[in-house]
Amino acid sequence: MSRSTRTGPEGAPVAGEGATVGTLVLLRHGESDWNAKNLFTGWVDVDLTAKGEAEARRGGELLREHNLLPDVMHTSVLRRAIRTGELALNAADRHWIAVRRSWRLNERHYGALQGKNKKQTLDEYGEEQFMLWRRSYDTPPPPIADGDEWSQAGDPRYALLPPELMPRTECLKDVVDRMLPYWYDSIVPDILAGRTVLVAAHGNSLRALVKHLDDVSDEAIAKLNIPTGIPLRYDLDASLRPLVTGGAYLDPEAAREAAAAVANQGR
Amino acid sequence: MSRSTRTGPEGAPVAGEGATVGTLVLLRHGESDWNAKNLFTGWVDVDLTAKGEAEARRGGELLREHNLLPDVMHTSVLRRAIRTGELALNAADRHWIAVRRSWRLNERHYGALQGKNKKQTLDEYGEEQFMLWRRSYDTPPPPIADGDEWSQAGDPRYALLPPELMPRTECLKDVVDRMLPYWYDSIVPDILAGRTVLVAAHGNSLRALVKHLDDVSDEAIAKLNIPTGIPLRYDLDASLRPLVTGGAYLDPEAAREAAAAVANQGR
Repeated sequence: MSRSTRTGPEGAPVAGEGATVGTLVLLRHGESDWNAKNLFTGWVDVDLTAKGEAEARRGGELLREHNLLPDVMHTSVLRRAIRTGELALNAADRHWIAVRRSWRLNERHYGALQGKNKKQTLDEYGEEQFMLWRRSYDTPPPPIADGDEWSQAGDPRYALLPPELMPRTECLKDVVDRMLPYWYDSIVPDILAGRTVLVAAHGNSLRALVKHLDDVSDEAIAKLNIPTGIPLRYDLDASLRPLVTGGAYLDPEAAREAAAAVANQGR
Repeated sequence: MSRSTRTGPEGAPVAGEGATVGTLVLLRHGESDWNAKNLFTGWVDVDLTAKGEAEARRGGELLREHNLLPDVMHTSVLRRAIRTGELALNAADRHWIAVRRSWRLNERHYGALQGKNKKQTLDEYGEEQFMLWRRSYDTPPPPIADGDEWSQAGDPRYALLPPELMPRTECLKDVVDRMLPYWYDSIVPDILAGRTVLVAAHGNSLRALVKHLDDVSDEAIAKLNIPTGIPLRYDLDASLRPLVTGGAYLDPEAAREAAAAVANQGR
């Protein structure tokens, strides 16, 4: 974590402008096949590894241990987030809650980098370009060609997207722009209805949401890493602002260690 | 199967009053922990066995092999049906479709028989009473007490049900009555929208649906067994009637063998 947070035990607010109207829980998927291979993944629909499955189950056990029981879950349309949510809910005995999905919660589209090795990309393009693609707020990688092996052109799950909505590369700013309509139109109504909402998604779609919630600057978001498999709790007031900036991880110790490891990817 | 069906290859209609407006696929969950132990299960939320998981995956492979790809899935709120649907969709590469759940697709509530051994119940009450409870259309088992170990009173997934809707026992007629509103209000609109609809559910909630679709008599439904893990396809016309009575199993040979085995449960 690159920011200080003000958290009480179990994420209870220590200060806040108003009362909690709803609770949001963010869960980043665990290790995937391509995380393990150090490849840029983006919209490529890889599965979890056995380690990633165990992370998801542990995330669900944390929810149960903290009695933080979701009433509804939102996921991306990518297998690693869908299965993370399923495994976590099953472990928390909440497999029966309502589920909704949207491409707007997908990982950042990594453009022509999809399928490429992170270490090789670093060696080939150098530290500056590599970090620009990975962490700059508004510089996307080169777009992927429709004929590329790792393009999603023609994937039936995006058949209802007008062509102009289908990304061929994205920077984090693009993710914020396409994620926010889903936040406002689909997740916020659940929160205002008093539900505890679980969002099972990806490093960058969750960073985009955290950037919005905590009003993180374009510069500061570059250094924010969300660890995998550890539920991050936000209690929100009636204006949908966090009572505690940065929220609270259900396992803060593990979150600190994991975030440090993510920051070193590609090294 | 106790009925003759008129089916062409791949379930294509050989006769019919009208054109297909939508396709319904029924999938009964695979072996559960309590199937394996020969216990009455009903609303008790047991998990699949490893064999049941394999059945679910095989069901998904059949969907993929037959290019019968669901656009939306409906499940009960019980783990064995939810996980069957998840495993099948994952195997069919359709894990990303929309999912909806309802208690109205649950297994028949077995009342005071829940948690009891089928063989012991047969020995204790005799063949006639046993078959009446298992197969009569309108005679429910004795109701379960709220304090019973296997009662669902207080289960949070039913918290929004008014007390008068919460069953304490059910005969198949009760299942038809509480299932049909979900069929009409939630599944039919998906079919009329031209979607291929997967229903992942239970022996008796699916028998209730088949009874309605094929207009099976109260007597004949007693002898109808739906095998586990084998997708059953119905092409429906604009009046929501099957173009082929009885639909078509994606693996008819396995369906015949499995249905015979189910009919012998408790012996």
